[in-house]
Amino acid sequence: MKALVYHGPGKKSWEEKPKPGITEATDAIVKIYKTTICGTDLHILKGDVPEVTDGRILGHEGVGIIEEVGTAVTDFKKGDRVLISCISSCGKCEYCKKGMYSHCTKGGWILGHLIDGTQAEFVRIPFADNSLYHIPENVDEEAVVMLSDILPTGFECGVLNGQIKPGDTVAIVGAGPIGLAVLLTAQFYTPSLIIMVDVDDYRLQETMKFGATHTINSQKEDAVAKIFELTEKKGVDVAIEAVGIPATFELCESIIAPGGHIANIGVHGKSVALHLETSWSKNITITTRLVDTVTTPMLLKTVSSKKIDPTKLITHHFPLQNIIEAYDTFQNAARDKTLKVILTNDSEK
Amino acid sequence: MKALVYHGPGKKSWEEKPKPGITEATDAIVKIYKTTICGTDLHILKGDVPEVTDGRILGHEGVGIIEEVGTAVTDFKKGDRVLISCISSCGKCEYCKKGMYSHCTKGGWILGHLIDGTQAEFVRIPFADNSLYHIPENVDEEAVVMLSDILPTGFECGVLNGQIKPGDTVAIVGAGPIGLAVLLTAQFYTPSLIIMVDVDDYRLQETMKFGATHTINSQKEDAVAKIFELTEKKGVDVAIEAVGIPATFELCESIIAPGGHIANIGVHGKSVALHLETSWSKNITITTRLVDTVTTPMLLKTVSSKKIDPTKLITHHFPLQNIIEAYDTFQNAARDKTLKVILTNDSEK
Amino acid sequence: MKALVYHGPGKKSWEEKPKPGITEATDAIVKIYKTTICGTDLHILKGDVPEVTDGRILGHEGVGIIEEVGTAVTDFKKGDRVLISCISSCGKCEYCKKGMYSHCTKGGWILGHLIDGTQAEFVRIPFADNSLYHIPENVDEEAVVMLSDILPTGFECGVLNGQIKPGDTVAIVGAGPIGLAVLLTAQFYTPSLIIMVDVDDYRLQETMKFGATHTINSQKEDAVAKIFELTEKKGVDVAIEAVGIPATFELCESIIAPGGHIANIGVHGKSVALHLETSWSKNITITTRLVDTVTTPMLLKTVSSKKIDPTKLITHHFPLQNIIEAYDTFQNAARDKTLKVILTNDSEK
Amino acid sequence: MKALVYHGPGKKSWEEKPKPGITEATDAIVKIYKTTICGTDLHILKGDVPEVTDGRILGHEGVGIIEEVGTAVTDFKKGDRVLISCISSCGKCEYCKKGMYSHCTKGGWILGHLIDGTQAEFVRIPFADNSLYHIPENVDEEAVVMLSDILPTGFECGVLNGQIKPGDTVAIVGAGPIGLAVLLTAQFYTPSLIIMVDVDDYRLQETMKFGATHTINSQKEDAVAKIFELTEKKGVDVAIEAVGIPATFELCESIIAPGGHIANIGVHGKSVALHLETSWSKNITITTRLVDTVTTPMLLKTVSSKKIDPTKLITHHFPLQNIIEAYDTFQNAARDKTLKVILTNDSEK
Repeated sequence: MKALVYHGPGKKSWEEKPKPGITEATDAIVKIYKTTICGTDLHILKGDVPEVTDGRILGHEGVGIIEEVGTAVTDFKKGDRVLISCISSCGKCEYCKKGMYSHCTKGGWILGHLIDGTQAEFVRIPFADNSLYHIPENVDEEAVVMLSDILPTGFECGVLNGQIKPGDTVAIVGAGPIGLAVLLTAQFYTPSLIIMVDVDDYRLQETMKFGATHTINSQKEDAVAKIFELTEKKGVDVAIEAVGIPATFELCESIIAPGGHIANIGVHGKSVALHLETSWSKNITITTRLVDTVTTPMLLKTVSSKKIDPTKLITHHFPLQNIIEAYDTFQNAARDKTLKVILTNDSEK
Repeated sequence: MKALVYHGPGKKSWEEKPKPGITEATDAIVKIYKTTICGTDLHILKGDVPEVTDGRILGHEGVGIIEEVGTAVTDFKKGDRVLISCISSCGKCEYCKKGMYSHCTKGGWILGHLIDGTQAEFVRIPFADNSLYHIPENVDEEAVVMLSDILPTGFECGVLNGQIKPGDTVAIVGAGPIGLAVLLTAQFYTPSLIIMVDVDDYRLQETMKFGATHTINSQKEDAVAKIFELTEKKGVDVAIEAVGIPATFELCESIIAPGGHIANIGVHGKSVALHLETSWSKNITITTRLVDTVTTPMLLKTVSSKKIDPTKLITHHFPLQNIIEAYDTFQNAARDKTLKVILTNDSEK
Repeated sequence: MKALVYHGPGKKSWEEKPKPGITEATDAIVKIYKTTICGTDLHILKGDVPEVTDGRILGHEGVGIIEEVGTAVTDFKKGDRVLISCISSCGKCEYCKKGMYSHCTKGGWILGHLIDGTQAEFVRIPFADNSLYHIPENVDEEAVVMLSDILPTGFECGVLNGQIKPGDTVAIVGAGPIGLAVLLTAQFYTPSLIIMVDVDDYRLQETMKFGATHTINSQKEDAVAKIFELTEKKGVDVAIEAVGIPATFELCESIIAPGGHIANIGVHGKSVALHLETSWSKNITITTRLVDTVTTPMLLKTVSSKKIDPTKLITHHFPLQNIIEAYDTFQNAARDKTLKVILTNDSEK
Repeated sequence: MKALVYHGPGKKSWEEKPKPGITEATDAIVKIYKTTICGTDLHILKGDVPEVTDGRILGHEGVGIIEEVGTAVTDFKKGDRVLISCISSCGKCEYCKKGMYSHCTKGGWILGHLIDGTQAEFVRIPFADNSLYHIPENVDEEAVVMLSDILPTGFECGVLNGQIKPGDTVAIVGAGPIGLAVLLTAQFYTPSLIIMVDVDDYRLQETMKFGATHTINSQKEDAVAKIFELTEKKGVDVAIEAVGIPATFELCESIIAPGGHIANIGVHGKSVALHLETSWSKNITITTRLVDTVTTPMLLKTVSSKKIDPTKLITHHFPLQNIIEAYDTFQNAARDKTLKVILTNDSEK
């Protein structure tokens, strides 16, 4: 089969690889129908994720059709249409039992990371019964690709951890795909104000179509001053960090109201200054989280009942074999006005 | 009347001051029976709290007897024995309605800070109906003095914010009076392990009498290594910072298990490094809080029903007029093996 | 002034009464601008609420303008536009401190019940600082009248107690004004399915405009069978009783899924059969509640930010002096297709 | 092997049965070391549980040693000492993922009910990885037998569902083994008052040793009056039904304070009267639950750390082959002052 293979920092190629087979009784082999590219894939290509070694097939998102299942798989069979979760869950360990699949002792984020991933014609999925989901009849498969990672990430790490409530004031710092996933799912809880902060005017303008109530270009405006002005000088109830650098986290610290929640989603490369000299008495809560995908069944219900339309996040389409071109478009997001790309395995048609 | 008056950094005196009178209809005047000294009073004397100005009577803890009430006070009358909360709550503002009395727009921590305090023969208490509590018949008044500040602080900022559950592993960093208040109230939730970390062997040894299961002198032992050893290499479910310096907060970051809670209580003077480069994916929660004293009624029930004995925290007694000597003992805690001191107003006998 | 006065079962009149004055320092006198009629007022007129005695002015909802305040009122002054809560809260008692204003030891539901109410030109409001709310500049006063009682009732007793979550399946039994208030506020949490059950086709048809996804006329269809069909044979996650008779409560018992929540709102006159012989093992939760109006500030934010439009509930308008005619229209809801009526005090124009 | 076999209402025998073998890859065969008898076993013998058919081996509690595991079992191996949960959990279905193992679509309570149980020399355990627990080194096996069913039942259905908090007032209606399991685990949360209600003076007297603060013999005293007297005329914050008949449930309704929680544990044979005519406005919560055993790992930690001693519940010991005699003792609890019995498989020595 063909797959997108990592060959060390900066190097990737679309090349022939052996088709995967069942290695454990709990495995499934899935023929990929549609997949996408994640910001994390770009991090890997920069060499920021040293656990990923030469020869690894990338990708941890996608939908497909079951090709084969191991003897212990009971809930899926050949021919089933499935959503692949970016997180593999054994369903048995201490963490899985607590719903913290991200820390599964045998799984977690392993696809396209510690084992071969989904940017390929076929993929082996471990712990299939706990890591795949049936796609309801009436649901658009491209919408469902957004549920592999980006939507649960925005929802769990941002919205749930931020504890957004009806009437709340919310700031989302970062209007990339993750920030937009937060924006879409934040509206499940009817906040009164959603302020998007970014440095790209095009993206900010787009967010108004996704439900933002206000936007701030933090390179052109004083974000702190404007947010206090919008919130009766209190700051926001919930600030969500969706970038991953010290400046954006510290912005969240600057704009949080007493009693508020800062939910970090960004993948940080260095430590940030936590200003306890002012915040020790502010009754604030800060959370971190790697997505658990524990809300995937719930998100499927909201997609299936048309309460949310994740296809809004998709800006470009490519055949799977043109994945190198798709990476280029995804990497040049500002130039190409890219949010999420969809790669379709034509051999599946 | 006599009172302990602040005269700028390093200067205090026991001197004659005018007896306070009712200024608002919601005020009460309380004759102090017993009061104590808080670590915060020492901070003020160092000049760390610049809002406290020359001439201010210090103190924000105590029990006493109602001398007089304003016309709008309905729940207290002359002669009632009362607990004085360190936090004044108007009962009407947005924050008070949410139970966040610490951020009351008209009150909060003002006693011995922005208005005259309790280290005096009499004190004026604003918003008396919402800031005083009746002392049940059978309850020791010295136990109740511990409920003005230290016990709700340990319980709310440490135990509740840390979300201690039965079976949890807990580390309390700092074995001073606040750390001990956490230790006492943490046991309300039956954790399986309570590890005390400090640098004073005497205090650590004392904590075993208060219910600690393990102690670590972090100057003599590798606290991180020992805590991982005690917790099956996972770290603790809850880490509570009860010191207020970067080293102790960062120790909490080093020992927290995935999914764990770090509850900060310490009053910090500078920022700390938040290691998001490792913790972004650890699903942790960090909280800060100024005590709200919203749990005072509940704590009174646990004292009244003998579920907790706060008098264990009291090591020294002085007549109120010897308060200068009491400060010396409290400031030299290691030398005098001091935890909390009780000052009794003899004129009350 | 003129007022609507109760004179025993079946008897009411619009008559001259003395204008109320301040009796406690915490009182305010409010000139009524707009008020409405509640189903509870009809219960009173039937004689079902014996605490209401001859001579009582009815009504517990409305907006108006402050005419005068007592000396202890600090947050309101003459001329302020205010929302009157149906629940009076002292802000000091054990229950008020817990946010359970409905059980306030000095207040609770007293307006138009134990003291004179709002169906009058003026009303005395006890505990004004804790029982009135400022009306934001941009908000329609008729929308706000719906926040005196009906919206917090639907939201607190139905939606919050039912713990509606995104993706949930919800059945609301009863499509009267309270059921519709549930329907409007349930959507704050984005359930996937909202099934309305009633016996009046017109009302059911109207609910589709309010956001219902399905309707069932339980006189014409087998409600239980249809609900199981709509919910993959599981029953609903949340069933809300908004009628107050045994049949509707037992319907809720019949349609609840394992792990589900039944939230009772209805005012019941007799006991119902709780089928523990089947439900003991179903992991269900049943709640009862008299509205606390603790969410009024939050609801004001959602109205102010246009997340909800409570004026949809208003079907008829009358001048206040035509209140007898308004009662007739409200009592004959099916005949006149009445939901909520608005009574405007013309003297206020 | 030998086993206790059900032969229709009133009939049981200790007889030879084939030793079970692995039938699914997720099975384990456990050699029973210790087991016990449950009130539910008596119900079965009365014929109250018609799903149990002639020939079924009874029992759903016990500890043992792994004899053999299926090919898909990864966390257990021959020779491991294990706790058998009364609830079998597949770990994959919608309910298991929510922690509601009691409603597992393939498991739930099936042992000694729909499949052969633990009152035998060997038992087949389905879904072994999710239904067995390793026994820590230092823990008494007889203590652990209490964790198969009775302790998680008391804790989950009573204490957790009742939401007991520090300082709460609690009434436990029924002082049988389940009521005592509630009493033991309620103390994890430090209530101020625990009132035991029963009709057997011996059992009531015993409860004082388990931590009860007050006892009421409801045949000799007016339980409602006494409970109001003990709770400042408010009623209890939490009432736990541990009997399963209308009178005891209605007693819970009569003694609950506004805002309180009634947690039903009892297995009811008929419906009870829910007095909504008085409770509709009392802001109460009623819960039902079949034990999920989701707290078993946590309970093991509290036993392992000596925070609780479940062996207090054990009053009698028998060799496994004397199980008929053990049933007699368990059935005549009042005569023999029986709480829980332990049956030991001597062949294991």
